[in-house]
Amino acid sequence: MSLSFHIHATGGPARRATMVLPHQAVETPVFMPVGTVGSVKAVPQHLLEDLGAEIILGNTYHLYLRPGHDLVKRLGGLHRFMSWPRALLTDSGGFQVFSLNDLRKVSEEGVHFRSHLDGSSHFFSPEHSMDVQIALGADILMAFDECTEYPADRSRAQASLELTLRWARRSKDHFDAHQHETPWAAELPGQSQSLFGIVQGGMYPDLRRECAERLVEMDFPGYAIGGLSVGEPRPLTREIIEQTLPLLPADKPRYVMGVGYPDEIVEYAAMGVDMMDCVLPTRAARHGLLFTSQGRLNIKNRAFAEDQGPADPECGCMVCRRYSRAYLRHLMAAQEPLSAVLNTLHNLAFYLDTMRRVRDAIAIGTLPALLARVRALDDSRSGQ
Amino acid sequence: MSLSFHIHATGGPARRATMVLPHQAVETPVFMPVGTVGSVKAVPQHLLEDLGAEIILGNTYHLYLRPGHDLVKRLGGLHRFMSWPRALLTDSGGFQVFSLNDLRKVSEEGVHFRSHLDGSSHFFSPEHSMDVQIALGADILMAFDECTEYPADRSRAQASLELTLRWARRSKDHFDAHQHETPWAAELPGQSQSLFGIVQGGMYPDLRRECAERLVEMDFPGYAIGGLSVGEPRPLTREIIEQTLPLLPADKPRYVMGVGYPDEIVEYAAMGVDMMDCVLPTRAARHGLLFTSQGRLNIKNRAFAEDQGPADPECGCMVCRRYSRAYLRHLMAAQEPLSAVLNTLHNLAFYLDTMRRVRDAIAIGTLPALLARVRALDDSRSGQ
Repeated sequence: MSLSFHIHATGGPARRATMVLPHQAVETPVFMPVGTVGSVKAVPQHLLEDLGAEIILGNTYHLYLRPGHDLVKRLGGLHRFMSWPRALLTDSGGFQVFSLNDLRKVSEEGVHFRSHLDGSSHFFSPEHSMDVQIALGADILMAFDECTEYPADRSRAQASLELTLRWARRSKDHFDAHQHETPWAAELPGQSQSLFGIVQGGMYPDLRRECAERLVEMDFPGYAIGGLSVGEPRPLTREIIEQTLPLLPADKPRYVMGVGYPDEIVEYAAMGVDMMDCVLPTRAARHGLLFTSQGRLNIKNRAFAEDQGPADPECGCMVCRRYSRAYLRHLMAAQEPLSAVLNTLHNLAFYLDTMRRVRDAIAIGTLPALLARVRALDDSRSGQ
Repeated sequence: MSLSFHIHATGGPARRATMVLPHQAVETPVFMPVGTVGSVKAVPQHLLEDLGAEIILGNTYHLYLRPGHDLVKRLGGLHRFMSWPRALLTDSGGFQVFSLNDLRKVSEEGVHFRSHLDGSSHFFSPEHSMDVQIALGADILMAFDECTEYPADRSRAQASLELTLRWARRSKDHFDAHQHETPWAAELPGQSQSLFGIVQGGMYPDLRRECAERLVEMDFPGYAIGGLSVGEPRPLTREIIEQTLPLLPADKPRYVMGVGYPDEIVEYAAMGVDMMDCVLPTRAARHGLLFTSQGRLNIKNRAFAEDQGPADPECGCMVCRRYSRAYLRHLMAAQEPLSAVLNTLHNLAFYLDTMRRVRDAIAIGTLPALLARVRALDDSRSGQ
């Protein structure tokens, strides 16, 4: 069995569910911290467990380059390599490769690209992305897609989604033929990895519909909406999600890739999204941007130099229980490595706690009130 | 009461004792991790507590520059500022200032120096060093001394120790007059900070003797041997320690500053040293050098790329229990911030565990056997 998805409660289109994966039963809606190169930057795995993270992401492109999927496979797969016993999801490498711009060349067969590390030449095809992801051994793999750039005109978006659909078919065929090669196949008999399809189509709702319908015909155990948060205005992101979600099977997990700010993830969960991921909480933390129940704090700000309060008075995380804003500001100013550790711990605690509140609100029927509070906070912040 | 020192057992000149300080009863011999700018680099305080660290060091020079002792005092002192409930020791700033070389100018009154951060001009005198250290509020302060450079000829070493003695007197007078200004004076009534004297005298045993005898006349609650590990050969370090220790009161703590490698700290503890500190385990960790029961590992080495064993098979620390050498090597190669966190945790665990073994060995009378094992390891390593 690859994945089962049990819906316990709904609140409008939102769902409170358990997604059972080989390594972990994941409570959804879920925010997945990003562990790009086999580590959620600056956070030891046991602290990630303490935070309640049940699933984290690995980036196929980065892990392929360093330390290499063959090495990871020989060492038993990514779970064992990084000592992460819970669930893992790997992206297809497509998004990172497409971010390389001048360093890539797309053909029907796949993508030639140059490493951002040393300029060396590489080639990713749907088949190769599957091989790499099977070797890494995540619980969930993503089909190799072309992430359509923004803006893209209609004919470009159409051509791009057609390529994504052909690659989805090739991804699935190759995955089905090779998934028995999963590094932990013998350890977890009867369990397997799951491959999700990705909906593209640019900012054209009818193209999104076409892509979704044709992907659903291929019958994936879960579906993602990709090609968002690529520079488009936020109302457009929301519109595409809102129009695409109903086209995806209600009994399977639905994942929006690469979002978002705290109010966005609440909003999208309320619209029926089950899974989200974003580098924002971890990357922003390293730049001193903290997310709190009262809005965003730039902890470098001189105003915090003698502030003895916690980063977020309503947060019970290990950072807010112990350290002051003054200390966090000092660590940042003195460029102490502990700064990244503590800021990241807080931001992840805030994101994971936000999703915990969303799940509770769906279960007890208070999602509209939670959503109203989150929107009010966002309004007040933009008025500052 | 400032400090009490209870000797429970001895093994030759070595002593197993408890040093009771206002914030913590510290088991000695002790190795003190260095927290230069208010943080032991890359390690959250709760993990330092988990490691069993009972006392850590802060550097007065660094904390004076950033965030500033006045700010730290207004926020309740360094313990509260950095949320470290256990014991703290601050150095006098002298060693760092003397390391500035071209940026300083020494006079009878004190030292003019320029900040390594922005070139701004500053002045440290014994009185000012005391003011800064009283404001920081560590459990143990160090007298302001001149760290004699190596090599120094006899007349230079003599003149330098005379200055150190005059500064020790001024340090003590100023400390005695102002120690009631300790930021936590009201919180811990009847408790106070303790000021230690520092023996200088270069590499001349008779000058060390003279300095020790005249310092002892001033009656400090503890004494340090400074001016070592400044470039001299190790047998000379050992000789100076060996000849100076018997000149210091046996019923008070004896501290050798700035040492050392794992075999050194065992050796010096066996000679009767009670306290040591060094940036080595933390700094080396950030460069990938790990200390283990089998000698040193350069974790960047390609030989470890697929090594699934722990950094040290005999170590039970949170890093060795969970992560492989292959993973630690990968983190270092990929320049992941977690690398510094995990490497530092292991090295500190190894150092603290080493001192735990020393204390146990003194208590049960097996120190000679422990010492023999440590020396044998050192010999075998240098033969590699």
